[in-house]
Amino acid sequence: MAQQPLSQDLLDKMHRYWQAANYLSVGQIYLLENPLLKQPLERKHIKPRLLGHWGTTPGLNFIYVHANRVIKDRDLKMIYITGPGHGGPGLVANTWLEGSYEEFYPSIDRTEGGMQRLFKQFSFPRGIPSHVAPETPGSMHEGGELGYSVSHAYGAAFDNPDQVVLAVVGDGEAETGPLAASWHSNKYLHPVNDGFVLPILHLNGYKIANPTVLARLSKEEITKLFEGYGYKPHFVELKHETFNDKQATFHDIHQKMAATMDACLDELNAIREAAKAEIAAGKPITRPQWPMIVMRTPKGWTGPKEIKGKKVEDYWRSHQVPFSDIDAENVHNLENWLKSYEPETLFNADGTVKAELTEIAPKGLHRMGSNPVVHGQASKDLRMPDFRNYEVKFEKPGTVNAEATREMGKLLRDVMKENEEQRNFRIVGPDETASNRWNNVFEETGKTWFADYLPEDEHNDTLSQDGRVMEILSEHTCQGWLEGYNLTGRHGFFSCYEAFIHVVDSMFNQHAKWLKTTRHINWRKPLPSLNYLLTSHVWRQDHNGFSHQDPGFIDHVVNKRAEVIRVYLPPDANTLLSVTDHCLRSRHYVNVVVAGKQPALQYLTMDQAIKHCTKGLGIWDWASNDAGGEPDVVMACAGEIPTMEALAATDLLRQHFPDLKIRFVNVVDLMTLQPKEEHPHGLSNREFDSIFTADKPVMFAFHGYPWLIHRLCYRRNGHANIHARGYKEEGSTSTPFDMVVVNQLDRFNLAIDVIDRVPKLAKIGAHVRQKFADKLVEHAQYIAEHGDDLPEVKNWVWPY
Amino acid sequence: MAQQPLSQDLLDKMHRYWQAANYLSVGQIYLLENPLLKQPLERKHIKPRLLGHWGTTPGLNFIYVHANRVIKDRDLKMIYITGPGHGGPGLVANTWLEGSYEEFYPSIDRTEGGMQRLFKQFSFPRGIPSHVAPETPGSMHEGGELGYSVSHAYGAAFDNPDQVVLAVVGDGEAETGPLAASWHSNKYLHPVNDGFVLPILHLNGYKIANPTVLARLSKEEITKLFEGYGYKPHFVELKHETFNDKQATFHDIHQKMAATMDACLDELNAIREAAKAEIAAGKPITRPQWPMIVMRTPKGWTGPKEIKGKKVEDYWRSHQVPFSDIDAENVHNLENWLKSYEPETLFNADGTVKAELTEIAPKGLHRMGSNPVVHGQASKDLRMPDFRNYEVKFEKPGTVNAEATREMGKLLRDVMKENEEQRNFRIVGPDETASNRWNNVFEETGKTWFADYLPEDEHNDTLSQDGRVMEILSEHTCQGWLEGYNLTGRHGFFSCYEAFIHVVDSMFNQHAKWLKTTRHINWRKPLPSLNYLLTSHVWRQDHNGFSHQDPGFIDHVVNKRAEVIRVYLPPDANTLLSVTDHCLRSRHYVNVVVAGKQPALQYLTMDQAIKHCTKGLGIWDWASNDAGGEPDVVMACAGEIPTMEALAATDLLRQHFPDLKIRFVNVVDLMTLQPKEEHPHGLSNREFDSIFTADKPVMFAFHGYPWLIHRLCYRRNGHANIHARGYKEEGSTSTPFDMVVVNQLDRFNLAIDVIDRVPKLAKIGAHVRQKFADKLVEHAQYIAEHGDDLPEVKNWVWPY
Repeated sequence: MAQQPLSQDLLDKMHRYWQAANYLSVGQIYLLENPLLKQPLERKHIKPRLLGHWGTTPGLNFIYVHANRVIKDRDLKMIYITGPGHGGPGLVANTWLEGSYEEFYPSIDRTEGGMQRLFKQFSFPRGIPSHVAPETPGSMHEGGELGYSVSHAYGAAFDNPDQVVLAVVGDGEAETGPLAASWHSNKYLHPVNDGFVLPILHLNGYKIANPTVLARLSKEEITKLFEGYGYKPHFVELKHETFNDKQATFHDIHQKMAATMDACLDELNAIREAAKAEIAAGKPITRPQWPMIVMRTPKGWTGPKEIKGKKVEDYWRSHQVPFSDIDAENVHNLENWLKSYEPETLFNADGTVKAELTEIAPKGLHRMGSNPVVHGQASKDLRMPDFRNYEVKFEKPGTVNAEATREMGKLLRDVMKENEEQRNFRIVGPDETASNRWNNVFEETGKTWFADYLPEDEHNDTLSQDGRVMEILSEHTCQGWLEGYNLTGRHGFFSCYEAFIHVVDSMFNQHAKWLKTTRHINWRKPLPSLNYLLTSHVWRQDHNGFSHQDPGFIDHVVNKRAEVIRVYLPPDANTLLSVTDHCLRSRHYVNVVVAGKQPALQYLTMDQAIKHCTKGLGIWDWASNDAGGEPDVVMACAGEIPTMEALAATDLLRQHFPDLKIRFVNVVDLMTLQPKEEHPHGLSNREFDSIFTADKPVMFAFHGYPWLIHRLCYRRNGHANIHARGYKEEGSTSTPFDMVVVNQLDRFNLAIDVIDRVPKLAKIGAHVRQKFADKLVEHAQYIAEHGDDLPEVKNWVWPY
Repeated sequence: MAQQPLSQDLLDKMHRYWQAANYLSVGQIYLLENPLLKQPLERKHIKPRLLGHWGTTPGLNFIYVHANRVIKDRDLKMIYITGPGHGGPGLVANTWLEGSYEEFYPSIDRTEGGMQRLFKQFSFPRGIPSHVAPETPGSMHEGGELGYSVSHAYGAAFDNPDQVVLAVVGDGEAETGPLAASWHSNKYLHPVNDGFVLPILHLNGYKIANPTVLARLSKEEITKLFEGYGYKPHFVELKHETFNDKQATFHDIHQKMAATMDACLDELNAIREAAKAEIAAGKPITRPQWPMIVMRTPKGWTGPKEIKGKKVEDYWRSHQVPFSDIDAENVHNLENWLKSYEPETLFNADGTVKAELTEIAPKGLHRMGSNPVVHGQASKDLRMPDFRNYEVKFEKPGTVNAEATREMGKLLRDVMKENEEQRNFRIVGPDETASNRWNNVFEETGKTWFADYLPEDEHNDTLSQDGRVMEILSEHTCQGWLEGYNLTGRHGFFSCYEAFIHVVDSMFNQHAKWLKTTRHINWRKPLPSLNYLLTSHVWRQDHNGFSHQDPGFIDHVVNKRAEVIRVYLPPDANTLLSVTDHCLRSRHYVNVVVAGKQPALQYLTMDQAIKHCTKGLGIWDWASNDAGGEPDVVMACAGEIPTMEALAATDLLRQHFPDLKIRFVNVVDLMTLQPKEEHPHGLSNREFDSIFTADKPVMFAFHGYPWLIHRLCYRRNGHANIHARGYKEEGSTSTPFDMVVVNQLDRFNLAIDVIDRVPKLAKIGAHVRQKFADKLVEHAQYIAEHGDDLPEVKNWVWPY
């Protein structure tokens, strides 16, 4: 091996530091007592239930100590993203060794007693999780569900030019779709304005019970694959045949890893310098070939080679607890294994770490377990323009059209502008920013793009190497970037077609779980909320039809803990503006906003919108005729299209039954419907009854699946009187009005529903009911002939 | 260009055939009348609402005609998978041209009138969808949601050795995660026993409003990327600078495409021959470098170059309807565009296709629009062993432990065996077949594996080139393979960790929509059901904790149409066996089965299990003491762990309150809870009341989120008395019993809930209530000390 960057002394210390981390990892998995093996190991020192994952851990520890070296050598700020989050013991061990852990958890100090508590708590009931969980210092990524390490890493790096983000990717994780797509994130990273991402693909060889695909490709294929992805892979490989020869092996692999880390960091610096020179010369930046490391080491490295005649090291049997039948033979095996790390050379008799090893770790905030960026401690609020200035004005409600998301786009443009200096706001989306009507944002910034440019891009001047709008046709990558950006304290908005946000259901789950847990960890500061705009929604899939219709993401979201979940259905532009402002100022929530992008009627002035959104729901007096008294029926609605249909139904009913007292209720904040014991936004029963009544029929026109209304309201007094209409999986490519008709959410069906439910209309309503039914027939005939909606429907405005 | 496989005559015909398809595509998007342009085009001939996607369509048409040629030349059976499903007009046009369309839709015949109806119906209200939807002959893949074309293609090819599956992948789709992962499917394809997959990556250049990433990489990077993925890419490229020179261009690109198709098919045949030779020689098959095509043509090819000074062809403006403001100028532009295809050379005056063009198409079932494999017409039922033979036997209920999924694995092993000859059964899973206890399957077959083998694989003899268990750590790829396999009439089971099945929420949506729609298309035959086993469920995440806990997939599933959805929660092994048999015999459903894999108590004999599963729910007399009379309380449950806790709670209550009449109800088929108007399995209200009563307290211990029970039951008479317990997002790495305690689903909390709800216990229960509460404190202390559950809990058995 040519390069030998480590002195023998440093190499020895690093090796022992690594062994210390490995010792502490095995200890966490197995030991309840006797942490320093001062006594001969006995069954009673071993945990009754053995839980944890060893296989990936020694590799993670190896990377950690080498990262420590370059942090110290180069005075770096580094984030360690652990794709194989199962290696929790490794990250806990390292943050303990470096002293971060005891600063957050004083009882787990670097003493013998602290070490014993460190071991015991791991995977112990009501102790700490086995993953690189929120409880683990330095983590911003649990790695429990696989696929997101690289997109999280890039998200963390954007606008963090002084951070180096190490992204360790397991070869299991590398088989997942989200991960496979996210390698292309390197076409979105600015070499000067963003931080560095250094991916380390860890070819650990095995998953739970199988070899991994990437570990079983030829080196030539791996090289080409990553060169094809735009990286320059550097290999650090322990040869399959030779790693048994420990002494030589360890020496070589440490030197090789150190040389490779140096080479990669040198390349990263050179890339930045070259880009700076190009910028200075007024040239576009040439997309660099970004360095990455492919590290091939054995699964369960340094663990037992065999247990009872079965291969363990370098095999899938190392994946979790390598052996868990703790008979006398295995007590002995465990003791031998632990002693192979020579703990007496790592720790003093009082459990403190040998002084020459503590030197290896960086100091203070340079320790990866203390990086303030991943603990939310570096997060700044957004500078917010006054959203009231973006008011859509009109004379009378329900008479003027506007595209709600376009108005929102104007606000976002100015959020971009106000925060240009702070560089802490980005927008992500799968190729839909313009489609979703946020075009005005492009007045302020472009779409990040480092892939090739063509002459015609002059006509598409929204592409930019320094843009702050991130578009890639991968909802996973969008979500991963934004999560990484949020998790490091910065703000954003994700706009997505409503149906396809389900692509990231599982990612949302993990993020919501992270938020729930971190709310209760005091050294983690509240993070910016994860904000979704869902548009191109179920009711306006004119181009796309059935496959693009699914309003169920909110059903999915409300399964998560109320303390971190918010769902908004603003019916028009001013309410959307008010909600947007609220979302961008909020922290530590997931805010789901569902809104329309097509021209639609406007209902509330900005003053009214603010009041309405603050309450979360309310009676629209201008649309009601119960004059503050008891109504005959409540017409309730949530969502853009249902609001219009409910209003039009109200209009029909008032025309035909002037004496019918209708109370019109609109819901913006869906969580108000839940009992207040279930959600902090929930109404008390008294408040609920004062709006919906306890005994009158309630027609509820809902944007999503109608049973969600029942699920939220089932404990309410008047629940039996609520009749909800919404999407019920009907519809194809059709007209907007036909979509509501086939789902019985249209004005005529709503009006018929009211006639059928209000006792006083039972007799007098029959004729009108027939008239409405006839209208539906007329509609069907009209669209079959004209391919378009009835003009009276299409051009309807609120007439009062 | 060296190779010129097409005679000038054939080239001219193929070119005109392509132009005919393009003409018909534009006609569908724009024209209401005047299909052959016999009159000068006027506004009134054009649709009032213009909907559809042009951009991808001409490329799809180009591929189709070239596929037709090789089908004829080589007598192939071919499946055309349209990744860019937006190109619906193209596939409709081609299946019309070849005559398949009129066989399924006689009114859309190949006449002028038929052509007019063809045009009108497209994206017309209640006409046909704009995508390659179920209504499109020859389609097994809508392509509405992107990411699944390649995994569907491989799924279709497995065990279909006489099919060639063409998978057209758009460069938009290629950015998605699921697609990026699925390229590795080539490590799972058997060159002899499976069919061929020929991927065509269509570098169309643009998405809705952006260039695509892959179209903006260097040719060198693209080449390396796909070589890295294990393919040999063949490029068919229209040079950006030259494609304006139409005459020369078209000649060259046709020859190039034809030569490339020939080369790829020759390579595929050579790969098969080489593999056969290796098999004959008793050697393992060398993994081949599978051919693929990278086709770079302009978006909106052959469309208008510019409209009103704005670039259209070869630009994102071609994505949907290239121009939709139909003023006089654009009427003229449209007419010119349509006439550029010279329709008079394509169609006779009566609208029939020119005879020399019809020759180009294959005949009969060789037409891609008539391939019986994708219409379910070639599907065979499974040969099923008698599941009764796998009964777990015991003397008394609730006293013997078994691992339910392990017993299921034995049945599946024999399903494998029985269908070895038919080769129509596969198992998929993300590295979890063994973890989920289906190990016995490996007695009959191995895990498909064509990546490298190492010496130690001898110890892991489950890897096999001809295995029928498919494992890759990508839920997307597993799901895509199985969908493709199902959609071509074959059967399977997908086993997955419960929490991570959410990764495929969106894929499930699309498949459920496909099933719903195809139920009502008479020329499509019922498909095998899509079967999920969800295990490693929320209650047994001892290793993994909070990130691995999510029982919400069933919430997601029940939003889809009742006619295609089934959800089963068998409480033990015999019920799981009965349910498994039912699922494998069923057709055209999505069956979700949630079951346990850990040792757990067994309750029903096989006879009892069959009766119980047939009813879907029922009273367990042996656990009840209401002696057929009115109970004081109903203890209901669904799911493995809740059943045990509900039984243990019943035991506690019976010990302490011998006079309390408890009716014990277990639910296997969750859909029985819904009203029968909502789901075909739903109970009538009378039946429901006869089991749950209309007025007694019902404690419902549920596997999932408790509100799902309310959502299903909210219309029931006794709903107000139902008190459901389930998962409420609490829990970390802990013991099994602690998990139920922190979610208040444990026996003590259930018993306390009963005491609190049964009037006659109000006074006499206080002391016992306190005793149960004390037990919870004792539990907490015990686990903190011992790291394990209270022995009395852990070792509990049903005592009666």
